[in-house]
Amino acid sequence: MKNQQWQLKTRPQGLIGEEHFERVVCEMTDLAEGQVLVKNLYLSFDPTQRGWVNDMESYMPPVAIGEVMRAGTVGQVVSSKCSDFDEGDLVQGLGGWQEFFVSEQGIGLSKVPEGVTPQEALGIFGTTGLTAYFGLLDLSDPKPGDTVLVSGAAGATGSVAGQIAKLKGARVIGIAGGPEKCRWLTETAGFDAAIDYKNESVVEGIARLCPERINVFFDNVGGDILEAALDHLAMNARVILCGGISGYNETEPRPGPKNIMNLVITRSRMEGFIVIDYLSRIGEFLNDMLPWYRSGQIVHLEDVQEGFDNIPSTLQRLFSGQNLGKQLLKLAEPE
Amino acid sequence: MKNQQWQLKTRPQGLIGEEHFERVVCEMTDLAEGQVLVKNLYLSFDPTQRGWVNDMESYMPPVAIGEVMRAGTVGQVVSSKCSDFDEGDLVQGLGGWQEFFVSEQGIGLSKVPEGVTPQEALGIFGTTGLTAYFGLLDLSDPKPGDTVLVSGAAGATGSVAGQIAKLKGARVIGIAGGPEKCRWLTETAGFDAAIDYKNESVVEGIARLCPERINVFFDNVGGDILEAALDHLAMNARVILCGGISGYNETEPRPGPKNIMNLVITRSRMEGFIVIDYLSRIGEFLNDMLPWYRSGQIVHLEDVQEGFDNIPSTLQRLFSGQNLGKQLLKLAEPE
Repeated sequence: MKNQQWQLKTRPQGLIGEEHFERVVCEMTDLAEGQVLVKNLYLSFDPTQRGWVNDMESYMPPVAIGEVMRAGTVGQVVSSKCSDFDEGDLVQGLGGWQEFFVSEQGIGLSKVPEGVTPQEALGIFGTTGLTAYFGLLDLSDPKPGDTVLVSGAAGATGSVAGQIAKLKGARVIGIAGGPEKCRWLTETAGFDAAIDYKNESVVEGIARLCPERINVFFDNVGGDILEAALDHLAMNARVILCGGISGYNETEPRPGPKNIMNLVITRSRMEGFIVIDYLSRIGEFLNDMLPWYRSGQIVHLEDVQEGFDNIPSTLQRLFSGQNLGKQLLKLAEPE
Repeated sequence: MKNQQWQLKTRPQGLIGEEHFERVVCEMTDLAEGQVLVKNLYLSFDPTQRGWVNDMESYMPPVAIGEVMRAGTVGQVVSSKCSDFDEGDLVQGLGGWQEFFVSEQGIGLSKVPEGVTPQEALGIFGTTGLTAYFGLLDLSDPKPGDTVLVSGAAGATGSVAGQIAKLKGARVIGIAGGPEKCRWLTETAGFDAAIDYKNESVVEGIARLCPERINVFFDNVGGDILEAALDHLAMNARVILCGGISGYNETEPRPGPKNIMNLVITRSRMEGFIVIDYLSRIGEFLNDMLPWYRSGQIVHLEDVQEGFDNIPSTLQRLFSGQNLGKQLLKLAEPE
């Protein structure tokens, strides 16, 4: 039996592209005791994957050269020599860019909850939703009357974070690229207003749309957008550092915001988090998110590409801003 | 009766100096009902005064051109038409750079607590001590085994913050300029080690002295020192932004640290505060600080200059790093 993989060939300096990966076909050996063989059905694409290929210590070790590219996946158990998993189970984990993967003792695998589709398991009910939920609610406390600003607002995490803030009664402003995304934010996702960073000044947009300044900033972008937001903080504001996609493809780290001292003047807090710290609290999250999503109070878009060949180019969609909502790629349907 | 003042003449671009102030003699009118006339005895010099003369909204309005320079003071009541204050009372407030000042209804005046000297009232038991105490303990929770790094460590606030962290059982490293200050930190103030930023690399010093990385960083300096500290954060670290003296005399705001994303990777928090928010909790502070200081568990140095003529040049001592400990200037002894 053969397995196809996309392995990391070279480390990107700057923009990540297809040339940094190599398509490899390898032989699979028979399952040993305790192993679970999983066929990948859907791959998740996340900005944080860009950091995983840098040769730098971070919250996870870097993907090694010649190693299969790490990615979140939903798959189906093909065969199992581990008592916790049965053939046909839908499972999620870090299965990577490959057709099949083998888990030892089921470590890193969890079953997709009953009634949740593979797409949903990687999106709204997966790390995307979890990131939005705990990032927003654990690091801030949006209240009625508060102004919450979200960057990368039409992205998977940002769109959910903004909608949760709306459910908590806040006024929510999103920053996104292009009229289509901005329209989706206000017309479908229920944001109060949107700033199109490709066609208007973010600084002016914030000043116009946040006359009472910003109580909570949920930042996926960093760079100039972070600096603009820091200039408009309300007293005791909370800046939630979820990501900094504007800098992920830079060859040299860029200077930070000039106005960090605004945190002092406004007695504000800027804080980072990583979703993996919250995996054990998924029950708490699903208790809220299942009814919110099933009742239509929260909407979630998925951008689903297809085909093994298109895996590396699909990652690039995140950095060119082509995706609207959660970026996925379908390899196969469950049987 | 005449009053001498140092008024703000022009706004400094860059380094603040004597040329930005004008010495003025003005007539004083008779006290009206409700007024309190105070003779200034000691002036406090604080880095934040540099910000007060910028034409920029901040946590207090800017000092206007032609207005007496704002400063913390301890003085003695000369005469009072307000029932809350009597002739001879020692009082503190924002009396400014002048020989006498008049408070309306005693607003902004508070009596120096019994048994506290004027110098102590402006230093260890005043906003300096209060800043160190609440900045450290309200924004972090240093515990035995933690590593606490303090910049501006031989300054008034930094030296106290570091000693409080020691009392809480932490390992405390200070950053200061010059061997004399560093020796004082380790030999007198009980710091575990000191980094002399004038004679060694701060990045290397931190790496050497904080092998377990930094749990709490109490920052008075900003700039490169903040960036160096952000490179060495432990998990769930707390960065307390007390001040940023390295940037106060810059004509243009400098870029911020390149490595803000380290807050994400280490799930850390950076937070600002202003001591005036804690003035109402001074009782809580004195309950701890009076016994700590009287028993010698906390030491505090005061650098006391003298003479009305020397007021503007004394402010410059803060920015050239000439002061060791709290910078004060004595105008007169209490009667």
